[in-house]
Amino acid sequence: MNSFDFYSPTYFIFGKDRECEVGAYIRKFGGSRVMLVSYGGNIMAELMGRVRSSLAKEGLEVTELSGVKPNPRSGLVYEGIELCRKNKVDFLLAVGGGSVIDTAKAVAMGTVYDGDFWDFFSGKAQLTKALPIGTIQTLAGTGSEGSPDAIITNEKTMDKSAAGNDCIRPRFSVMNPALTQTLPPFQTACGVTDIISHALERYFTNTPDVELTDRLLEGVVLTMLHEGRRVMENPANYEARANIMWAGMVVHNDIMGVGRQQDWNSHHLEHVMSSLYDCAHGAGIAVIMPAWMEYCVKHHDPMRMAGLASRVFGCEMDYADPARTAMDGVRAFRVFLKSIGMPLNFAGVGADPKDIEKLVEMNHVGSGKTKGFVELDAAAIREIYELAANCEM
Amino acid sequence: MNSFDFYSPTYFIFGKDRECEVGAYIRKFGGSRVMLVSYGGNIMAELMGRVRSSLAKEGLEVTELSGVKPNPRSGLVYEGIELCRKNKVDFLLAVGGGSVIDTAKAVAMGTVYDGDFWDFFSGKAQLTKALPIGTIQTLAGTGSEGSPDAIITNEKTMDKSAAGNDCIRPRFSVMNPALTQTLPPFQTACGVTDIISHALERYFTNTPDVELTDRLLEGVVLTMLHEGRRVMENPANYEARANIMWAGMVVHNDIMGVGRQQDWNSHHLEHVMSSLYDCAHGAGIAVIMPAWMEYCVKHHDPMRMAGLASRVFGCEMDYADPARTAMDGVRAFRVFLKSIGMPLNFAGVGADPKDIEKLVEMNHVGSGKTKGFVELDAAAIREIYELAANCEM
Repeated sequence: MNSFDFYSPTYFIFGKDRECEVGAYIRKFGGSRVMLVSYGGNIMAELMGRVRSSLAKEGLEVTELSGVKPNPRSGLVYEGIELCRKNKVDFLLAVGGGSVIDTAKAVAMGTVYDGDFWDFFSGKAQLTKALPIGTIQTLAGTGSEGSPDAIITNEKTMDKSAAGNDCIRPRFSVMNPALTQTLPPFQTACGVTDIISHALERYFTNTPDVELTDRLLEGVVLTMLHEGRRVMENPANYEARANIMWAGMVVHNDIMGVGRQQDWNSHHLEHVMSSLYDCAHGAGIAVIMPAWMEYCVKHHDPMRMAGLASRVFGCEMDYADPARTAMDGVRAFRVFLKSIGMPLNFAGVGADPKDIEKLVEMNHVGSGKTKGFVELDAAAIREIYELAANCEM
Repeated sequence: MNSFDFYSPTYFIFGKDRECEVGAYIRKFGGSRVMLVSYGGNIMAELMGRVRSSLAKEGLEVTELSGVKPNPRSGLVYEGIELCRKNKVDFLLAVGGGSVIDTAKAVAMGTVYDGDFWDFFSGKAQLTKALPIGTIQTLAGTGSEGSPDAIITNEKTMDKSAAGNDCIRPRFSVMNPALTQTLPPFQTACGVTDIISHALERYFTNTPDVELTDRLLEGVVLTMLHEGRRVMENPANYEARANIMWAGMVVHNDIMGVGRQQDWNSHHLEHVMSSLYDCAHGAGIAVIMPAWMEYCVKHHDPMRMAGLASRVFGCEMDYADPARTAMDGVRAFRVFLKSIGMPLNFAGVGADPKDIEKLVEMNHVGSGKTKGFVELDAAAIREIYELAANCEM
């Protein structure tokens, strides 16, 4: 196990109706002039009403930033930063899914920085401070409610990049599973897929002897296979929603990712795709990740994938031919994804196989390689996109 | 899943040699006049030297409180409180295992309280504030490095009680697995046993549909069965030590215990035993917990134990007779405990079956019942002690 620091000081407030306590928590964590970040329009009007009255009850000054879209863009972040400065905002409250939370995180870091907030995403500057934020989560999946990361798409360059530091971990997050009971099935399934991918991006590692986090990550995937099926059968199932919601946080706050190499190549390949086609991230992951697994089984020791296939997907271990077991696991993963309504190939996310060269280029690997469980050069990335384009399941 | 709050703001500093950074972390968390709490004597003299020079390097004022014994006593806590007040200590650093950390926690709460610190343990007062503490862990097992609890034995009454609140969670904990490589095998095995029990006290629940935390807790036990064997074969195995150490924290900071009923009856029955005989807590748990399981299989739906037997101990599920599978699991648990050198009956911890009535009385249930997965009255407690006394494995 590698050395590491781990710090997750977010206060989690979990259960039915708990969004009604939000004003008091903002006070507790020192806020008085709040920016409320949301999708806007009529989305969740009832919830927003409850939130506004909780803020009013505490006498908090409120500035609103609405209009967040999926795959959130830099334009709204600049707008938010200006508003925050103008109204001397000292706390941000994000009400929504990962897009809203990440927008709030980007505004929080940009407001207290002299330069362009994009510097943190381009790697030009090191993130060290931000305004405090809180969240009310309306969608389980991204894990942003407990994570130190934000992902934003630059509207000028269409680069989708991440910035991270413990200073943007939310001070508190309200997690009410009931708020997700009315989500469309497709969004629910995207969230389930994203949570599984957050487990697997940590699972595929070359760090030896990380038994504990291996077992915990397998536990998350096992749970998601079970609860993913249950929630598609009955979207109102509170218990399934609750397990999915806590899993989304637990797997991405990194308590089970510490001390081990991780591999985020499926995410990188997908981010390029969702920035080009504006497809849902979870759906893009369902297309890319099994293709990436196929590639890894072909070009790397298949034992880790075979282990996952056997421990999690119930595949019989073929000791004479573990690559076969590994491929059984990839197939079982795709069967599950299809069963919850996820696409498995380019056509399913509106991607065009003719764009593959463009997608490869947008990964910016040049003549180098990515880091990870399997290092990928441009040819490898091309092969993975081709496997994803041509999947016939 | 029940509603809950979860807050674990401890900063974890994990890896080789990291105790040398401790002075800087005390500064970072606002300390300047430090009380160093330890076993004292020649125990870990080299480590204590490294710690003292890190504190000196930062120019920290140091007061020392040494002489902590296993099953830590109230006397030293009173002494520590007096010293803290006299020297205006503003930060406590515990260097040791759970006994040292819990002593530091009790001193931290008592120093800023007007009354008797025991009020928090007797339930007379509600804990709300304490001096900040940090830890350098030298023994994996109790989980006190990341937990909001402390357990102290009252020397006058010989009551062993717990007090808890998020305010006594350590600000930081240094976790260097190498510091545990030279522990005697018996102490190592006690720690492994304690970690398993912290998973199982959460696992046995009547809360339905807690799939995620079920799977995570099983993951911890699976890891401990694996790493427990490896560390007994080779005490210097750093990787096994690292997995055990992180498991001890993760399972007891409650991230996998939230939203579910827990059952701490094995701990209560054991605390009475270790306060009477001053035996090691882990050894006491090895005697009590399988006996408690036997009792539960006899008097309660055996499916939870049968599930554990099948998922974790590799027992074949007998669908016609799950109680048989459950008992196979209890046996497999005892086989494991014996294999790492743990006692399984009263004789092994120096307890006398003639004391059973006294032990029952010391549980203070009167004509009532304990809470938990299975509620225990005095007759049930007697039966569990008898099962523990008479185990012939």
